[in-house]
Amino acid sequence: MTTSRRRFLATVGSAAAGGAAGLGASSARPVSGASAGVSAAGATPAELLDRHVAGDPPAAAAGAPALQDDPRMPTPDEVASWYTDRRNWGRWGPDDQRGAVNLITPEKSAAAAALVRTGRRVSASRVFEPEQHFMRVNPGAAGSGSVVDYYGFIYHGQTITHIDALCHMWDSDGMWQGRDPDAEITTRGAAFGAIDAWSDGIVTRGVLVDVPRHRGVDYVTPDRPVHGWELEEIAAAQNVAMEPGDALLVYSGRDAFLRDGGQYGGGARPGLSVTCAKFIRDHDVALLGWDMMDARPDPYGLAWPVHGVLFNYGVALLDNALLEPLAQACVEEGRDEFMLVIAPLRVFGGTGSPANPLAVF
Amino acid sequence: MTTSRRRFLATVGSAAAGGAAGLGASSARPVSGASAGVSAAGATPAELLDRHVAGDPPAAAAGAPALQDDPRMPTPDEVASWYTDRRNWGRWGPDDQRGAVNLITPEKSAAAAALVRTGRRVSASRVFEPEQHFMRVNPGAAGSGSVVDYYGFIYHGQTITHIDALCHMWDSDGMWQGRDPDAEITTRGAAFGAIDAWSDGIVTRGVLVDVPRHRGVDYVTPDRPVHGWELEEIAAAQNVAMEPGDALLVYSGRDAFLRDGGQYGGGARPGLSVTCAKFIRDHDVALLGWDMMDARPDPYGLAWPVHGVLFNYGVALLDNALLEPLAQACVEEGRDEFMLVIAPLRVFGGTGSPANPLAVF
Amino acid sequence: MTTSRRRFLATVGSAAAGGAAGLGASSARPVSGASAGVSAAGATPAELLDRHVAGDPPAAAAGAPALQDDPRMPTPDEVASWYTDRRNWGRWGPDDQRGAVNLITPEKSAAAAALVRTGRRVSASRVFEPEQHFMRVNPGAAGSGSVVDYYGFIYHGQTITHIDALCHMWDSDGMWQGRDPDAEITTRGAAFGAIDAWSDGIVTRGVLVDVPRHRGVDYVTPDRPVHGWELEEIAAAQNVAMEPGDALLVYSGRDAFLRDGGQYGGGARPGLSVTCAKFIRDHDVALLGWDMMDARPDPYGLAWPVHGVLFNYGVALLDNALLEPLAQACVEEGRDEFMLVIAPLRVFGGTGSPANPLAVF
Amino acid sequence: MTTSRRRFLATVGSAAAGGAAGLGASSARPVSGASAGVSAAGATPAELLDRHVAGDPPAAAAGAPALQDDPRMPTPDEVASWYTDRRNWGRWGPDDQRGAVNLITPEKSAAAAALVRTGRRVSASRVFEPEQHFMRVNPGAAGSGSVVDYYGFIYHGQTITHIDALCHMWDSDGMWQGRDPDAEITTRGAAFGAIDAWSDGIVTRGVLVDVPRHRGVDYVTPDRPVHGWELEEIAAAQNVAMEPGDALLVYSGRDAFLRDGGQYGGGARPGLSVTCAKFIRDHDVALLGWDMMDARPDPYGLAWPVHGVLFNYGVALLDNALLEPLAQACVEEGRDEFMLVIAPLRVFGGTGSPANPLAVF
Repeated sequence: MTTSRRRFLATVGSAAAGGAAGLGASSARPVSGASAGVSAAGATPAELLDRHVAGDPPAAAAGAPALQDDPRMPTPDEVASWYTDRRNWGRWGPDDQRGAVNLITPEKSAAAAALVRTGRRVSASRVFEPEQHFMRVNPGAAGSGSVVDYYGFIYHGQTITHIDALCHMWDSDGMWQGRDPDAEITTRGAAFGAIDAWSDGIVTRGVLVDVPRHRGVDYVTPDRPVHGWELEEIAAAQNVAMEPGDALLVYSGRDAFLRDGGQYGGGARPGLSVTCAKFIRDHDVALLGWDMMDARPDPYGLAWPVHGVLFNYGVALLDNALLEPLAQACVEEGRDEFMLVIAPLRVFGGTGSPANPLAVF
Repeated sequence: MTTSRRRFLATVGSAAAGGAAGLGASSARPVSGASAGVSAAGATPAELLDRHVAGDPPAAAAGAPALQDDPRMPTPDEVASWYTDRRNWGRWGPDDQRGAVNLITPEKSAAAAALVRTGRRVSASRVFEPEQHFMRVNPGAAGSGSVVDYYGFIYHGQTITHIDALCHMWDSDGMWQGRDPDAEITTRGAAFGAIDAWSDGIVTRGVLVDVPRHRGVDYVTPDRPVHGWELEEIAAAQNVAMEPGDALLVYSGRDAFLRDGGQYGGGARPGLSVTCAKFIRDHDVALLGWDMMDARPDPYGLAWPVHGVLFNYGVALLDNALLEPLAQACVEEGRDEFMLVIAPLRVFGGTGSPANPLAVF
Repeated sequence: MTTSRRRFLATVGSAAAGGAAGLGASSARPVSGASAGVSAAGATPAELLDRHVAGDPPAAAAGAPALQDDPRMPTPDEVASWYTDRRNWGRWGPDDQRGAVNLITPEKSAAAAALVRTGRRVSASRVFEPEQHFMRVNPGAAGSGSVVDYYGFIYHGQTITHIDALCHMWDSDGMWQGRDPDAEITTRGAAFGAIDAWSDGIVTRGVLVDVPRHRGVDYVTPDRPVHGWELEEIAAAQNVAMEPGDALLVYSGRDAFLRDGGQYGGGARPGLSVTCAKFIRDHDVALLGWDMMDARPDPYGLAWPVHGVLFNYGVALLDNALLEPLAQACVEEGRDEFMLVIAPLRVFGGTGSPANPLAVF
Repeated sequence: MTTSRRRFLATVGSAAAGGAAGLGASSARPVSGASAGVSAAGATPAELLDRHVAGDPPAAAAGAPALQDDPRMPTPDEVASWYTDRRNWGRWGPDDQRGAVNLITPEKSAAAAALVRTGRRVSASRVFEPEQHFMRVNPGAAGSGSVVDYYGFIYHGQTITHIDALCHMWDSDGMWQGRDPDAEITTRGAAFGAIDAWSDGIVTRGVLVDVPRHRGVDYVTPDRPVHGWELEEIAAAQNVAMEPGDALLVYSGRDAFLRDGGQYGGGARPGLSVTCAKFIRDHDVALLGWDMMDARPDPYGLAWPVHGVLFNYGVALLDNALLEPLAQACVEEGRDEFMLVIAPLRVFGGTGSPANPLAVF
């Protein structure tokens, strides 16, 4: 990485140490009662927003559990190797911004369409309530009229169904293709790896892996994250073979978990282990959709255990997908594959897009 | 209509007459230089917004041209009849909120998928630059980080590719199904005919009608609006027969018009004549997509000449579609039909959604 | 009231009964886990916003305590009389939109300025963190540059220091001057009683009434609301006589209450009793500033026990003032009166304004 | 400056050269008709926003006129010296964030209050129409209700009356006190020189310098910018002696200029010459308020000819003040001095604040 990259890391370090740039940390905000802005619940609106969008693992390493006893668990070096030695950087040329979505060729899209039989359509989007949703009525002549509305929102976080662009995350080695985030990310948008790289849409074969059905439970629990080898087992049991360019949808039962009083946010939570990254790379998955995301804390202390497939492999991520109705439809249709269509908004320089993914059987 | 409906109309009338409710009219805003807020260009930011979202015909009747000499032009009574006697209100039950999208059955979606051959994907969305697009960088531990962005926008108007929900417009007889807008439209969202009625998506056969290709010109001009009988002619010439539930995409060459210096906004503009409404109703079209919209002024003095298909027939509207690349693809593929997929965001109570429509050949 | 006013009430009633207009109630939003949008904490972002802005007493009458035993407590009829027989409607002409701020004459402002001795300035504003606060950097030529930011917020609620315009609230008799809210409130702004009526600012004598100091406690507690007769006692003890056009600032120790773990939101909370309204009317107060607002629940079951001074008397309200530093300054300066300056933003049609009130000693 | 500062400049350079970071330049946005998003008027909403907030001189040096013949015009070296040798950096300590506002001592505020005689209040704010202004009605029990509104806006630019914080601008030597903008400006706010440094308000003597009155014209014209020596002449003619800590309000007749069809934006425009900076520094002015700002183009090719007083001298800037009514009031009151009160919103990390400045006679 360049000098500027090193400077960026130094700034990040000083921020963590509470320096001037520490404004970025919500803990630097004034908290004394006299300095106000504190709501009755002890959180300012800005803090609520921060919690909403935060994806940072809160002290990941600190609270990391001991590695599970399962002998299949990889060593830290093996995990590190997946995200360094097996990166897809350069695979589609040095300036490529589409990543593994390149695997969704026209032929792949045509094959996906050929899967359609009954035409049943199932949305994988949660209900979307933009944080700013306002109406404006325009009375017209002679009793006519119209109404428009304003949508304002940050879609990243743990609530809104959305797709991440390749620029959305990075680690100390940089963004997708090794690019430098402080060169590519401006206050006006992302200059590399933005969502408009995928404007012609994602039309591919979707494969649902239904973890609760396989385990015979209602949902994935914190003590038992989903592992890559379990994905292999379930795919085999469901009789589907992953193929390059497929969209992998991992259903973990988040809604059932919530109904049971479970908490699902940016902190400790059930979900997928970093071992799933190997599965994704081994099978050249193009898109990962999930209702539960990276399990936290991560025993390896990684910042982005599974989200790392985004900037290391160029794999599109569909976060907060609504998969319960789709899992039910798979049972009813007697098949776990379908045509999946995701049409990200064509936002110039955007870091992702809210989405309404459609499965068609 | 009910008493409350009459009250609403009275209020609208007083607004037009400059009463207290006249705040809704941009002309009621302070305009003297001394009262400030006036930018150098003579328009306040609020006025720019108003212009952006305004869909009201500015004095439609006043500037209405004489009816064209074409003997095929209907009488005003005939036009009125299309939008009263042939309404689809009640056709799918009194409480239906999906309108003509009901015609897109699973079988229809399956048939659309069966049209796919090469798998070529073409987006029909213009580049989307939200009026509020802001970035927030979250530095993480050890050089990791992420970036999120905020999108804020009104998508209605003449710029952003979007889909209108059935609640978006009305005339003196009311909204879709005759509902009363001042009962159904609240400042928190629409209680009837909102966009979430179409959350399972629109997957149907798309048919492109290419007016410039047929006419041998670059674009539709103000003096020669597109008529319903011309759509019939073009469809026949293109050898496609419209079927119930089809999506009709009318390409008028807006981008070529703009490149030639044409102005395309809420005022006078080239586009489609009200006679297209009859075509749409005759063929049970489910969705109308267009790059040029209602031609203005309308010789019949209608507020919503073609937009009327929204609340009278329940036909979904895809406004500001980008059709030039799609028209080119049709030529290259040698066919004017394809699978069209539109996945409106699942916005609770929303009056529509920005969209990235995908055509797959 | 007019027919339209009655219609409005009917609509409100049907909303409460869960009718179509009930969309306005957050309880009408989808709550099942499967229908998504539900965050881990069990609240959607929209619900968080609703809670933030909600000023409605949750079932005021239902949870109302028995009237206190204090023989000074008025009967319900007496309370009703204060807000009907003693209204200021028409007092400054039928079309007046300035209300009791009319009492702040130039002479009153000059007298306030004459109170200044040491020139010590104290802000009564809490720290303001707009819910949407975004930055945009504009690099310029030759190493120059600039940065702008975007502020987006709803300032009403229990967090941000702000001033309410006369249009902000109403009861079944209407808004200020008896105007009809569904005629005056449009989706584009308020046509009557908007904040721009006070654009030339509020410069008057401020009087701080320090309840904790008088009681010898840290803060007002839920079991002992502040009464009008107590304000009389404290003013006498502090040796200040209220005069017409004064700004009354009632300090209740909200920040100390929060530091002790108290909850201060839209539900049950300590604060001022409706009996303070009589004090305000008796003394022709022009503005009421407070850190704790209406005590809830109200034993009389009123929707707006003290907030009623806004639309009945035309008294400006300064909500969520930061009064602890000001109370301390009063002690240090040895006086409880000062020049108070509030300069509401000149927002056309606005329902209020965030504010940074300044006390100058 | 540090290494990181140099890096920043390099990035700025590459942006100007059209590199990856050039996304920040509006010229990098797609402009071909086919790539859409282009409104009828030829400008995207994002471009309208850019124009609104842009403060960058468009090719300042390129279009710079020859220096005027007036022998009082300084040499470029003299001008450079004003902004380097006479900087106020360090004057109030190395970490000071209040700048020349430190000159507004309590004694200064008290002296300002002592100027008040008639109590006449005059607002110097233009009407404020936030670009996002939306209403939300909350029906309550028993016919009660309330309405709140949302304000969203960027206040910098040439429209809204606002105050600039010291962090708002910089040149190649850095921000106020020589701080590094890429260390101090984060996407979450400014860590140094933010508007909350002035939360206790600006209460000082205001002096209006009325250029049109002195010249006997309606407004300042492009061919004759206001010079520092003219300010000296006018102040002498008006019989006011500037004193340290004063607020200088320069009235140039912008509204009369607009009424005559003048254009006032970010490009060529009448206003103040860089020679006014010397006047400001010589007299230790604390705040400069103006209706016309820096005259453009600047003959010396400076990015911020007069705006440079912000980051070099620490002088607060009140942009887009409405001064015509105030100038009229000065004539009527027979005096050009008054108490000026500006209360910036207490925005944590903000780059400025919209304001309603109040003059009290």
